[in-house]
Amino acid sequence: MKFTEMLRERWRTADTLLCVGLDPDLTRFPAHLRAADDSIFEFCRAIVDATADLVCAFKPQIAYFASQRAEDQLESLVAHIRRQHPAVPVILDAKRGDIGSTAEHYAREAFERYGAHAVTLSPYMGFDSIQPYLAYADRGAFLLCRTSNAGGADLQMLDVGGERLYEKLARLAASNWNSNGQLGLVVGATYPSELARVRALAGELPLLVPGIGAQGGDIDASVRAGQTATGDGIVINSSRAILYAGHGDDFAAQARAVAQRTRDEINRCRHRSS
Amino acid sequence: MKFTEMLRERWRTADTLLCVGLDPDLTRFPAHLRAADDSIFEFCRAIVDATADLVCAFKPQIAYFASQRAEDQLESLVAHIRRQHPAVPVILDAKRGDIGSTAEHYAREAFERYGAHAVTLSPYMGFDSIQPYLAYADRGAFLLCRTSNAGGADLQMLDVGGERLYEKLARLAASNWNSNGQLGLVVGATYPSELARVRALAGELPLLVPGIGAQGGDIDASVRAGQTATGDGIVINSSRAILYAGHGDDFAAQARAVAQRTRDEINRCRHRSS
Repeated sequence: MKFTEMLRERWRTADTLLCVGLDPDLTRFPAHLRAADDSIFEFCRAIVDATADLVCAFKPQIAYFASQRAEDQLESLVAHIRRQHPAVPVILDAKRGDIGSTAEHYAREAFERYGAHAVTLSPYMGFDSIQPYLAYADRGAFLLCRTSNAGGADLQMLDVGGERLYEKLARLAASNWNSNGQLGLVVGATYPSELARVRALAGELPLLVPGIGAQGGDIDASVRAGQTATGDGIVINSSRAILYAGHGDDFAAQARAVAQRTRDEINRCRHRSS
Repeated sequence: MKFTEMLRERWRTADTLLCVGLDPDLTRFPAHLRAADDSIFEFCRAIVDATADLVCAFKPQIAYFASQRAEDQLESLVAHIRRQHPAVPVILDAKRGDIGSTAEHYAREAFERYGAHAVTLSPYMGFDSIQPYLAYADRGAFLLCRTSNAGGADLQMLDVGGERLYEKLARLAASNWNSNGQLGLVVGATYPSELARVRALAGELPLLVPGIGAQGGDIDASVRAGQTATGDGIVINSSRAILYAGHGDDFAAQARAVAQRTRDEINRCRHRSS
């Protein structure tokens, strides 16, 4: 099954738009987990198993694994998700972007080594830096469009001949660049009016929406702005607010409780809006 | 010593603008090296030791290590360069770009884990995605500006109010964004007129210039367009043309011969132009 179909299937059958971001920061782990050799895997596995029925996707952030020499634990984690929760796609948050010959190696890293269903990519180097990922016909790619950070405006909000750079990018991703239906876009929850604009330009493209929770984005505004006519089309990511909800032995149960409240809040907004 | 000072010192004392890019592709290795457990390290170490006196920098491309589960070999390689060739800076080609909290992890990966002197970054997410790297005051960062691939034009050549996006980026990197003198820019050898434009906008900023050799960029045009008044200011990268010059037991000697010819050709162009 193609990634975008798998995601649509998950939205429908599990009735959730929530994505849990896996950004494992050792300094914020419960004390009892910090000493183990594979503590990053164990922490993430516990979060995954406690929240899998509540999510439409998991999104490991590779920087957190790379800074801690934990690539092997990321491999184990994705393998665990694929084995135990085969209906939940894994979006590897890597924001790669390089010339074609190098992009082939990054695509191999994301899709073959880690087994991700989709990856996030930076579009600054243009379409030929995206193409090698699309050669994996069953996988997907979310291109950075209007990001959740304040500095995102530095380039993305520049006027490029009557429209903003992020608007131009949204149009490209929804047309010429998307011949096989593999693309989505990253649009921050912190800028709901721009999220609405991207939805207007990008048709039914899946939108990955970070920025709720620790970054302060508003759920209601994001759902209203981003959802499609069928009340889905968005993957709303929360990382820190869920991962570090608790600090004791019951951290996974605490994470589940916050994930459940977040999913329910998202679903209430969907129903209000539709 | 700050990275940019280290690089200027190297240009002066070693009389070279050549950078050897370390893109280890197992399928192109000499047969006798392919079977070893640490063949990637051994291949790169041989290239490094054979060319170190000819170069102003080494540039390992992290994608080639990541796709082959060889992060440990990249660690060993940079440690080897730092120990055996301490005057030669290492530019980790990673093209990272993410929100601040994630960028802190990528900066730790590049500077603490791998020990790189500088890193390449994508500017699409704006200045706050660059800042965490600049917190390492002795390290440097090269921002993608006008890249060597054809698709680079898709966004970089857009008109953003009377100038191109890459020109805007060059001006930002040479002014507001560069308060501590740590920045450089990536500009492909394949577009010499745009390289000249970046040099005009960016003052004395170091420019990392990929695209000669396998990508077909012209050395003479690149040197004329990119050099500063002192006949340096550019780091001219060649990867595949040097790495895979030979295919037998003497591959390192073959690589050295091509590196020497390339350095000499660059230096002849400098002298012609100045």
